[in-house]
Amino acid sequence: MPLKTECPARIVRLQEKLQQQGLDGALFIYPIDIYYFTATRQTSTLWVPAQGEPMLLARKSFARAKEEACVADIRPFPRSKEFAPLFDGQRKIGLTFDVMPVQQYNYYAKLLPEREFVDISQLNRELRSVKSDWELERLRHAGVQLCRVFASMADYLRPGLREVDLAAEFEARLRRVGGEGYVRLRAFNQELFMGLAVSGASASGGGFFDGAVTGRGMSAASPHGASAALIAEGQPILLDYTGIFEGYIVDMTRMFVCGQLNEKLQNAFEVACRIQATIVAELKPGAIASELFALAAQLAGEAGLGDFFMGPPGENAKFVGHGVGLELDELPVLAQGFDVPLLGGQTIAVEPKFVFPELGAVGIENTYVVTESGGEKITVLSDALISV
Amino acid sequence: MPLKTECPARIVRLQEKLQQQGLDGALFIYPIDIYYFTATRQTSTLWVPAQGEPMLLARKSFARAKEEACVADIRPFPRSKEFAPLFDGQRKIGLTFDVMPVQQYNYYAKLLPEREFVDISQLNRELRSVKSDWELERLRHAGVQLCRVFASMADYLRPGLREVDLAAEFEARLRRVGGEGYVRLRAFNQELFMGLAVSGASASGGGFFDGAVTGRGMSAASPHGASAALIAEGQPILLDYTGIFEGYIVDMTRMFVCGQLNEKLQNAFEVACRIQATIVAELKPGAIASELFALAAQLAGEAGLGDFFMGPPGENAKFVGHGVGLELDELPVLAQGFDVPLLGGQTIAVEPKFVFPELGAVGIENTYVVTESGGEKITVLSDALISV
Repeated sequence: MPLKTECPARIVRLQEKLQQQGLDGALFIYPIDIYYFTATRQTSTLWVPAQGEPMLLARKSFARAKEEACVADIRPFPRSKEFAPLFDGQRKIGLTFDVMPVQQYNYYAKLLPEREFVDISQLNRELRSVKSDWELERLRHAGVQLCRVFASMADYLRPGLREVDLAAEFEARLRRVGGEGYVRLRAFNQELFMGLAVSGASASGGGFFDGAVTGRGMSAASPHGASAALIAEGQPILLDYTGIFEGYIVDMTRMFVCGQLNEKLQNAFEVACRIQATIVAELKPGAIASELFALAAQLAGEAGLGDFFMGPPGENAKFVGHGVGLELDELPVLAQGFDVPLLGGQTIAVEPKFVFPELGAVGIENTYVVTESGGEKITVLSDALISV
Repeated sequence: MPLKTECPARIVRLQEKLQQQGLDGALFIYPIDIYYFTATRQTSTLWVPAQGEPMLLARKSFARAKEEACVADIRPFPRSKEFAPLFDGQRKIGLTFDVMPVQQYNYYAKLLPEREFVDISQLNRELRSVKSDWELERLRHAGVQLCRVFASMADYLRPGLREVDLAAEFEARLRRVGGEGYVRLRAFNQELFMGLAVSGASASGGGFFDGAVTGRGMSAASPHGASAALIAEGQPILLDYTGIFEGYIVDMTRMFVCGQLNEKLQNAFEVACRIQATIVAELKPGAIASELFALAAQLAGEAGLGDFFMGPPGENAKFVGHGVGLELDELPVLAQGFDVPLLGGQTIAVEPKFVFPELGAVGIENTYVVTESGGEKITVLSDALISV
């Protein structure tokens, strides 16, 4: 299994970072972090010393962790009094404060008294943002499968469907090609059920989701994605879905319409495609993430569409793209404030969109790899608006 | 909207608890907690003083929070320096340490210096465990819809399908009747994509999921639920799905088979149904949660099936039921260690199951309301094994 070489290489890269920061090691308890370093996501605690062999303390299922993990030292999670002796001499320990609940922190702080705990959230996310060739293969495969589903939808779409009918059909087709469904998001308070199938006015309001479009959802309790609204002739229909295979997530959006879009929406869609093309040409190592957002915003403004860029007027998100990988919200973010250079091998979903009150949302999204010659598209399907 | 009376009543019950514990108020940042008290799940921070009016500080979307929230005082989330003055004189503040990441804790501790922060996770979960009549109506509706889908599946099932085909079809039908899909789980490190469609040996292994059955899933990265395994004649097929409507979750399991189950599995299924009947008769206010688990385990043992109860041998879970509501893992838990009396109006999924290595899993699950006359079934559909 290629993970047998992938995981040790990831551990080595982590250990270099831990050494640079003067840490004795890092303790991971978040499932997808553990998966990244060990190839198992069974409920466990992973200790990676700054030097030496990692140790996986598996709670449930120990048998499955043993079967899957690319770590030699796997043990059942010890009793409390047997925990501390495993960490003798380890003083300065990294934890991912971004996802670790206070109760868990207090639990480990009690198990390991007199330690200094250091937040390694940023380091951890940075490590993961650059994909190996093996990971890019997984992501390309996810792209192919997700594109198959997007390409198949025209036969199903018709006026009078509810958004949720369209969602149900898309999601079923995605599951049938092997989509895993469960979307991992790292940001606190974000939730997403596979993606968004939204149309007309129900795509045009603000929402909790950290994107341009949220959708009404089925209720105030689940306020994102498809609603029970009927799809009508001439409305913009936006399908924004994740495809998840072996844990790796690609993200794409295509526009559909029953009949024709009006000129204003058609024009905005074309502007979105031009912004995408401009950004993609710049997806090279060394490009500054925040400058790519500024460039996109400038182009939107020059087209007279600044108020509608990346959200309804007044609720515009200040980003135009985000890293994808084992989580939907990986680094880098093409956003205001992210004054960092892109790195070769990062994978980024670029998604210029416009949101018009009452009318709906239009835009485009593809997932790209950062390369010396600009973004390599891995969601390989025509960007064209699909009219049925 | 009934929530206009529900939410204020919930706030009053919370305030009584805050006063009892000598707290000045509680600060909520977790989406579903905020939804429970305000009827909006937009990204916000909710302050509930021990006495007086709550205040909702909405980040995104402010407009939608304003449209939905049953709280008079709604404001845009303030700038940092304007935050502390809103909390003058508030010293002892409750937070939900069970779900609050350390980064968020540090952020609020910096905004509000010299405060004492107290963990109110348990208090918060206890409040939510008893459902009002309005909530029971929502849960009954969810039960009816989920049962419609379970009742419809016999026409689709046949040998040679992959588990994931069955899952795709079930999930699509559930979405079409309005199922919201996204399953909220409170426990750290738990994940669930709608439910489990599993059969034969792929249902028989251990897994990370805090239940009797996890399933293999599509990969080690998404190791739960349906796999690509083929469904064969004579294998036990276990469908365990959540139905989520207006945020309220019901949970149920039914067994299917193409042809006939062998005698051993058939017998275990009947034992599971008898255990369920015994537990349900005891789902009355005052019954002790841990004793109901002990009773279930005793019955399993007497039937000679103790080793297979609630998990494969050696990985048996020590529970037989769990509260459901806005989260799938609410209180109470019918589990070892939960020496607490049941309360009228609690809603509990009771799910005795047996897991046999190589052969698969059999069992039953329904959601009940705790009443003076025992559990009232709200997933009203025959428990019988469905043979196609």
